[in-house]
Amino acid sequence: METPPTATAIDPEDHPLESAEQLAEELAELVRMGDDADLSQYVEQLEPREAARAVCELSDEDEARLLERLIPQQASALLIDVPEVEAVEAVAALPPETSAAIIQHMPSNKQADLVSALADDEADAILAEMSPTDAIKLQQLVSYDPDTAGGLMQTEVLAFRESSTVAQILQRLRSDAGRFRQLDIQYAYVVARGRKLVGVLRLRDLLLADDSATAGELMIEDPIALDAQTPIAELDEFFDDHAFLGVPVVEAGGRLLGVVTRAAVDEQSQSNAERDYRLAMGVVQEEIRTMPTLKRSRLRLSWLSVNILLNVVAASVIAGFQNTLEQVIALAVFLPIISDMSGCSGNQAVAVSMRELSLGLIEPRELWRVWRKEFTVGILNGLALGILLGAVGWWYAGNPWLGVVVAVALGTNTLVAVLIGSSLPLILKARGVDPALASGPILTTVTDMCGFFLVLGLATVMLEYLV
Amino acid sequence: METPPTATAIDPEDHPLESAEQLAEELAELVRMGDDADLSQYVEQLEPREAARAVCELSDEDEARLLERLIPQQASALLIDVPEVEAVEAVAALPPETSAAIIQHMPSNKQADLVSALADDEADAILAEMSPTDAIKLQQLVSYDPDTAGGLMQTEVLAFRESSTVAQILQRLRSDAGRFRQLDIQYAYVVARGRKLVGVLRLRDLLLADDSATAGELMIEDPIALDAQTPIAELDEFFDDHAFLGVPVVEAGGRLLGVVTRAAVDEQSQSNAERDYRLAMGVVQEEIRTMPTLKRSRLRLSWLSVNILLNVVAASVIAGFQNTLEQVIALAVFLPIISDMSGCSGNQAVAVSMRELSLGLIEPRELWRVWRKEFTVGILNGLALGILLGAVGWWYAGNPWLGVVVAVALGTNTLVAVLIGSSLPLILKARGVDPALASGPILTTVTDMCGFFLVLGLATVMLEYLV
Repeated sequence: METPPTATAIDPEDHPLESAEQLAEELAELVRMGDDADLSQYVEQLEPREAARAVCELSDEDEARLLERLIPQQASALLIDVPEVEAVEAVAALPPETSAAIIQHMPSNKQADLVSALADDEADAILAEMSPTDAIKLQQLVSYDPDTAGGLMQTEVLAFRESSTVAQILQRLRSDAGRFRQLDIQYAYVVARGRKLVGVLRLRDLLLADDSATAGELMIEDPIALDAQTPIAELDEFFDDHAFLGVPVVEAGGRLLGVVTRAAVDEQSQSNAERDYRLAMGVVQEEIRTMPTLKRSRLRLSWLSVNILLNVVAASVIAGFQNTLEQVIALAVFLPIISDMSGCSGNQAVAVSMRELSLGLIEPRELWRVWRKEFTVGILNGLALGILLGAVGWWYAGNPWLGVVVAVALGTNTLVAVLIGSSLPLILKARGVDPALASGPILTTVTDMCGFFLVLGLATVMLEYLV
Repeated sequence: METPPTATAIDPEDHPLESAEQLAEELAELVRMGDDADLSQYVEQLEPREAARAVCELSDEDEARLLERLIPQQASALLIDVPEVEAVEAVAALPPETSAAIIQHMPSNKQADLVSALADDEADAILAEMSPTDAIKLQQLVSYDPDTAGGLMQTEVLAFRESSTVAQILQRLRSDAGRFRQLDIQYAYVVARGRKLVGVLRLRDLLLADDSATAGELMIEDPIALDAQTPIAELDEFFDDHAFLGVPVVEAGGRLLGVVTRAAVDEQSQSNAERDYRLAMGVVQEEIRTMPTLKRSRLRLSWLSVNILLNVVAASVIAGFQNTLEQVIALAVFLPIISDMSGCSGNQAVAVSMRELSLGLIEPRELWRVWRKEFTVGILNGLALGILLGAVGWWYAGNPWLGVVVAVALGTNTLVAVLIGSSLPLILKARGVDPALASGPILTTVTDMCGFFLVLGLATVMLEYLV
């Protein structure tokens, strides 16, 4: 964050997708024919995002060859900008020693993200290629939930003893300038024995201080620090309430573990929101249309095939009432409406629970609170929608009893849908299942079955009034 | 962003929802009974987010009374942290002169967000209470698309002439310290006649320079600047590629308009992603369960009532084939499946187009490109899903022809759904309609109608093989 704006003219260029395809072709040619220096130079002159996109266009083999031929620093810089799923695939495809060398050049939080996304045996193979100290540190990081301070922190911090002088600190900063440049460093920390955090140094104060002043004299004592378990909702709130660029992370005894930056929290919140949207729309893994067709088809089918089976299960309820349907064929018109509308009502409740969870406003155990709040809304909306559809049913069939059947069925099922929809994210989260992925399909299967059963069951009971 | 970490202990407190309700009660009591000083002091000691949540819990009357009784600075600080919809309602409810006074204490980008969200007559009434210069400036800001550099920039920048000395600049900084503190200022800009941007000053360099040095000597010449029309996708990419905290915004001739910060871009991207999710799930306006029940019911119904009408329209296709249905009642089992599955396939394509739009990978006019890419996936997935459901149909009805009918209908409709789903966001965006809001309902209505027509139409044509 500290790099100064450098001389370049106004820059309103656009990057149409075609250019990524072109770059990928040029890159693929260099990978296959050029020498290492040419390749390295070519990658160097690309903008990071441009380079990342071109890498995504490469075939898996070309991508592996590229990463092996670059020096580890360069390969690591490239992978940091690539979407995580793509980076994970790439790392898994390389020999473990190459992967280990590349990963060790990444910031600690990126290392942890990548390793925790790998299959266990792949991760173990890569960890085995690292020094035992590095491997243990990394395993420790991987153990944190990615949506907590521990999971979001970088462990690369500047930490000094109270007795360190400004001259010593500046010396250390200068010698490591290259490494710290890319690490968003704004503060240095002062630690006592056992790495216990005792103070914060602003880099600004260092610049203005006398060379012989000590860290202990310049530091701000008793700094704010957050526990490694602090969830992202609270981190978000923390950075809203405080104008800091980063906050130190400590474990129970006050030992300094790392620093969480505002940028890391913002990035994770944004990617969580994007992920919720993607999963709500049935896209299980990020898809860009330049990806190979077969892969895109396969990714989409992985979701659709589960859905079609659930749909068949739900529709089997209809099959059980074939006799009623034959006698009151008008009901067939209302089945898809009841199915779709209950899904809509339930999804709204899912979304509100997801939002309250991500804001830290509810805990997974507060089911009762949520139900109480949804019950009233479910009754009101069930009444409104039931009456509306009931009127349509009466008018369409010319029989008020058909109106009653669809009204009661939709009204009741609306209440069922909001109660189930609101509680699913809480229940799934408490059981460690991803609520964004599972809420939709489970919800619609249950509400479909329940809705079909209600309308056809009621119709069967009232059959004499309907025919 | 420049405020230093100050002395406070470790802070792992949690904010359960109950506390917001309690705070709101205490606040409401003070609003009704306490004097202005007590009220002001009470608000002052709350954390910003805590205060914002309590305000959301207040009744509309108490909220208005609170904002009127606080001094404008304090009211403005409070409203900045409240969700935008809530802030807009509050401002609209106040007398225009009070609203104007409060709004004028906000940073320029917040002013613009708020005013552009107001109804035209309310906005005009408030602008009429401002000085003509301020009103014109604000109107200018409101005219930018909120997803561009112009819409995201703050106009409060530090700008100096080349001849200004360090002593003069530092003097200005100190005198305005309070105002600049909350503005994320990291750089100052050097402008020539007509406010044309000619250089950037790092605040860090100022601190180390001689008092008599001039801005012209210290500045970095020809700084990177972005045009006011730069879309958010490019801003996102810019901050990924450059380690800056902010970038100056200029208009065509190079005149300095303001600065876009990394934080503003991140915040907007996050809120766009959250909004996409919310709308995809049918929540048209942010809902928190502590809001009044009637309001929550009304907000949800505003979406559901449109949906139920569209559903009735789509289902009317089924009514037209009552005769066929009566003879092949098994078809009733497959109607909801075809409706739901086509919706799923179409939604996936919507999500991929939304993502590519937000990444700046496609332009709204690139329909042909998108169709070409979707056609192959649509054929593949249509084949897979069609064959699967066809097999179920054959097995269920014991008649291969019923299998053929549902297979062809679902297969064809899958292709239709991905072609429509992928193009809707582009078409809507090109026409200035919100793609996130409109894609879902339009898509499912069209695919439902098309799917029902395909399966029932085919069945009618092949009736002799089915009965």
